[in-house]
Amino acid sequence: MSFGTKEYQERIRKTKERMASKGIEVLLITNPSNMNYLSGYDGWSFYVHQMLIVIDDEDQPIWVGRTMDANAAKLTTWLYHDNIIPYPDYYVQSDTLHPMSFIADVLKQIGQDKRSVGVEMENYYFTARCYEELKKGLPNADFKDASTLVNWVRLIKSDQEIDYMKIAGTFAEKAMMDGINLIGEGVRECDVAAKILHSQVTGTAEHGGDYPAIMPLLPSGEKTSTPHLTWTDQRYKFGETVILELAGCYRRYHAPLARTVNIGRPSDTLKALADITVEGLNACLDMIKPGIALEEVEETWRKTIERSGHVKESRLGYPIGLSYPPDWGEHTASIRKGDKTILQPNMAFHMIPGMWFDSSGFEVSESFYITETGCETFAKLPRELFIKDGALVDY
Amino acid sequence: MSFGTKEYQERIRKTKERMASKGIEVLLITNPSNMNYLSGYDGWSFYVHQMLIVIDDEDQPIWVGRTMDANAAKLTTWLYHDNIIPYPDYYVQSDTLHPMSFIADVLKQIGQDKRSVGVEMENYYFTARCYEELKKGLPNADFKDASTLVNWVRLIKSDQEIDYMKIAGTFAEKAMMDGINLIGEGVRECDVAAKILHSQVTGTAEHGGDYPAIMPLLPSGEKTSTPHLTWTDQRYKFGETVILELAGCYRRYHAPLARTVNIGRPSDTLKALADITVEGLNACLDMIKPGIALEEVEETWRKTIERSGHVKESRLGYPIGLSYPPDWGEHTASIRKGDKTILQPNMAFHMIPGMWFDSSGFEVSESFYITETGCETFAKLPRELFIKDGALVDY
Repeated sequence: MSFGTKEYQERIRKTKERMASKGIEVLLITNPSNMNYLSGYDGWSFYVHQMLIVIDDEDQPIWVGRTMDANAAKLTTWLYHDNIIPYPDYYVQSDTLHPMSFIADVLKQIGQDKRSVGVEMENYYFTARCYEELKKGLPNADFKDASTLVNWVRLIKSDQEIDYMKIAGTFAEKAMMDGINLIGEGVRECDVAAKILHSQVTGTAEHGGDYPAIMPLLPSGEKTSTPHLTWTDQRYKFGETVILELAGCYRRYHAPLARTVNIGRPSDTLKALADITVEGLNACLDMIKPGIALEEVEETWRKTIERSGHVKESRLGYPIGLSYPPDWGEHTASIRKGDKTILQPNMAFHMIPGMWFDSSGFEVSESFYITETGCETFAKLPRELFIKDGALVDY
Repeated sequence: MSFGTKEYQERIRKTKERMASKGIEVLLITNPSNMNYLSGYDGWSFYVHQMLIVIDDEDQPIWVGRTMDANAAKLTTWLYHDNIIPYPDYYVQSDTLHPMSFIADVLKQIGQDKRSVGVEMENYYFTARCYEELKKGLPNADFKDASTLVNWVRLIKSDQEIDYMKIAGTFAEKAMMDGINLIGEGVRECDVAAKILHSQVTGTAEHGGDYPAIMPLLPSGEKTSTPHLTWTDQRYKFGETVILELAGCYRRYHAPLARTVNIGRPSDTLKALADITVEGLNACLDMIKPGIALEEVEETWRKTIERSGHVKESRLGYPIGLSYPPDWGEHTASIRKGDKTILQPNMAFHMIPGMWFDSSGFEVSESFYITETGCETFAKLPRELFIKDGALVDY
């Protein structure tokens, strides 16, 4: 396990506190990040239905999942083996049976079927059909939306979580520079992606890397007009811009990072865009400290870049930490207008002021955590437009 | 785009045929594999809500997604730009707004709100809240479950799709042998995973690799008692068994493959388990041909291994092809008791008779497609328990 039992128990305590404040007696957790956060469970089994059940007056949660994954629960969690309940394989991707009806039966058997039941309504791993099956199987339950209940508990990290993210930051630095150093005229995009993945996962001599919740994003040329394209097997051309967004990941804790590189001399337009974007990011990192609201960070950004004439419609960032695919964001606060979340020590964010136009774009980002007096980035790389003129970029 | 417009149009035609047979007039597709299959759309943007709308009497589908991803839709699909509709960023991960209410408004504006509307109820990217928001926004629509409607269209591949999977098979072979060759006493698990990922994504000199929908699964030692553990940064010990399950992926088309390796001489128990499992898999591959039902494949397996005393509770395999995380299976048929799906040419499956016990396990698998007279595997590697005694295993 990545943490001692005491840390898991403390997380359960905080979760129950939030459950009580929302009148939730039984919490049905299907978000794999939340399952891991409370139990330690770690396996690529989230593509079938599985759940962690937190009951207000029980010390330990209950894990329910596919039979072949029950040994993974025994090996990776702090739960008593009696609290690990497997469902038979014929429930998997069946037209007639659904794992949620099995889970409804479990809740009936342990007398939890007539209570106030929280479900994560807005979560990739709680499908529309999951909810329909649960409602059918638990007609006397009072369902409440608990979509981000545990996510909000995750917002403030323990020191050990921050330490894991610092390690992830070293992976992100290395992967970014490995990628930038390989990029050049005639190199295939897939070979750069392969190099980055190798770097992310091999990690350092002291610590091995985990898979990030998002694959390297590597738009180039006109594809830099949009952020979420991955890669092809085409070769880079001289003059092209390449955006790299990637994360280091250690024990499922992420430190994302974005940089932009130009193969050969960049245009004046791109240079000016890079300058103002970096200036905006720097202005935010300088003012961030405990007590500030997220909307004030956005305001600082907006006021810094407004003389350039640019307007950024999309949000600037989001909390990060423990995550599983398909996203490394925590889905709680956002760095944007109207978000009144107040910064506190040991919160962690990815601030990514990406700028995308009709046929070009620029990204630079930092992942950081809030200290007692300001903030500290997980990676330590120059914030600038990198230029590949043939020589290696060495830092 | 990976295919010509004609192939996409033919897929739309087949989809509309199925829609008609189920009384569905408007199909709301949120499964990224289905979105790609019908439109070509390819980006790691599925962590926010997006949709492809197929209307019975319209030639082209409509793409709806986040503003910053609209350029990705323009760059990767065959759709008219007028059919690409972006939603503003303040809909993203908001407490008060939801992209499905935006989509409901779009459907109202184009007069599609009082029709029979199919939704993919059992799909990672159609959450319980998505359905609630759509029902609220479209009170006059008649909702029908269309969970695997497009998945079933995908079951029989075109020759070009099979060609892509053959290329993916060459990646799977290479990644598997690169992994097996690196595994040894004292080597870190993460370094093997890094090597495999590099191999998967760099592909071959002719074709570059794409990211597989599942990360390499690499359980070792007692962790081989369960299939879905990834890796740690621990070092392999002499005598340990390691299971490798991975896929080659080319343009999102997968060829998964599993093998087991022992560091040093394996136990007689493991050797016997390997022998009977390979015998069972071989017996199935020998009898598979068009006209056979999937349940007959399972029966062949069961009868072949029954003298060993082993019983496999879990299903033996599933269809494969175009996929996005978190799964490379197609979620339609299964190779298991009671499945009456009849094999036809150009169907493709991953058959993985994994055997897991209290503290050990064994896996061997093949991905294959149905030919006119039998089946052909995508990868060509020996089906056996690999033994690492220090020397490289060279094939």
